[in-house]
Amino acid sequence: MMTCRVVIYAADMARWEPGARERLEQAALELFVEQGFADTTVPQITARAGLTTRTFFRHFSDKREVLFGVEQDLPALIGQLMADAPASLRPMALIEQGLSVVASTWFEGQRDHLLTHRAVVATDASLRERSLQKKAILSAAVSQGFRDRGLDELTSTLSAHVAVTVLNVAVDRWLDGDGEAPLTDLVRDTLHELRGLLGEPG
Amino acid sequence: MMTCRVVIYAADMARWEPGARERLEQAALELFVEQGFADTTVPQITARAGLTTRTFFRHFSDKREVLFGVEQDLPALIGQLMADAPASLRPMALIEQGLSVVASTWFEGQRDHLLTHRAVVATDASLRERSLQKKAILSAAVSQGFRDRGLDELTSTLSAHVAVTVLNVAVDRWLDGDGEAPLTDLVRDTLHELRGLLGEPG
Repeated sequence: MMTCRVVIYAADMARWEPGARERLEQAALELFVEQGFADTTVPQITARAGLTTRTFFRHFSDKREVLFGVEQDLPALIGQLMADAPASLRPMALIEQGLSVVASTWFEGQRDHLLTHRAVVATDASLRERSLQKKAILSAAVSQGFRDRGLDELTSTLSAHVAVTVLNVAVDRWLDGDGEAPLTDLVRDTLHELRGLLGEPG
Repeated sequence: MMTCRVVIYAADMARWEPGARERLEQAALELFVEQGFADTTVPQITARAGLTTRTFFRHFSDKREVLFGVEQDLPALIGQLMADAPASLRPMALIEQGLSVVASTWFEGQRDHLLTHRAVVATDASLRERSLQKKAILSAAVSQGFRDRGLDELTSTLSAHVAVTVLNVAVDRWLDGDGEAPLTDLVRDTLHELRGLLGEPG
């Protein structure tokens, strides 16, 4: 009975706090920029967001995780995208079309946010490690997506590396540049460059 | 004066303890396998190796680092290898020849050790994070090696990703297999597969 009531209570709370997760993320990012990651506490984040620490820990396991909440959904989103794609689509065509969708829907309009996010992550060793871990999780999800489409182990692994490398390199180029070129163009160009490189005689 | 004497003392100690680092690594790996990473202490490692904790901390900053001592030298080794290669060598030829050298000199004969190492790393989240970090450091070193050869930023970054991906995937295939095929063959085959994948129409 107790468990049941707690669950209902949690569900009610979530209903009463629309956008709680986004508000916590925004507040955390602001505070990390203003006073540094190490010097920011969870109570400070919740105070800024106008929420309780109880709400914080319902959404995030720790202070680090609040920076990677959005990325948490990315593996599932990409898995769904890959499962929905026509079965006849070959790996490279799927990578090209999939990255175009991810760039135009997921990243578009997020450039300023991502610049701040990347700058904060760069300030702390534990955040850099967590960021690498998230990329590895993403790569594993993409690899699984290819295996689920019937590709062999090696092709799935290499395809996932290609997709994640192209996305990461293109996003870095997008953030390093002036923001004029849309990310979709940089994704296409990065893939083109990678193809050109691999096409050279070894 | 004091600093001077400490340095001399440390140098003497190193001379009196041939292979101290290797003995500490071997002892640590044995203990991590026998009783787990979390339950193993630095004094236990030094007792097993017949050395002092003082010697341990001269070689490693912490218990995690003892597992990545060998990898610490890899970026410098690869940097030297890349600097020594003929200036006329194009990126793909350098990757192919460089990986062949690394596979046959650095990894050959280390399969059993690497299998144990990989199994231990897989048991602990902090070790997995450190392992990813080491791969990122390696990738950055390779990328810098290409920039030092006069390649542009994008080509250097992509070439480094190709080299590190092919090496990592080939090593995993080598460890997952029966060990019959030499790593050099798996490196060549993995690169061939990646070329084939990228050559597909997108």
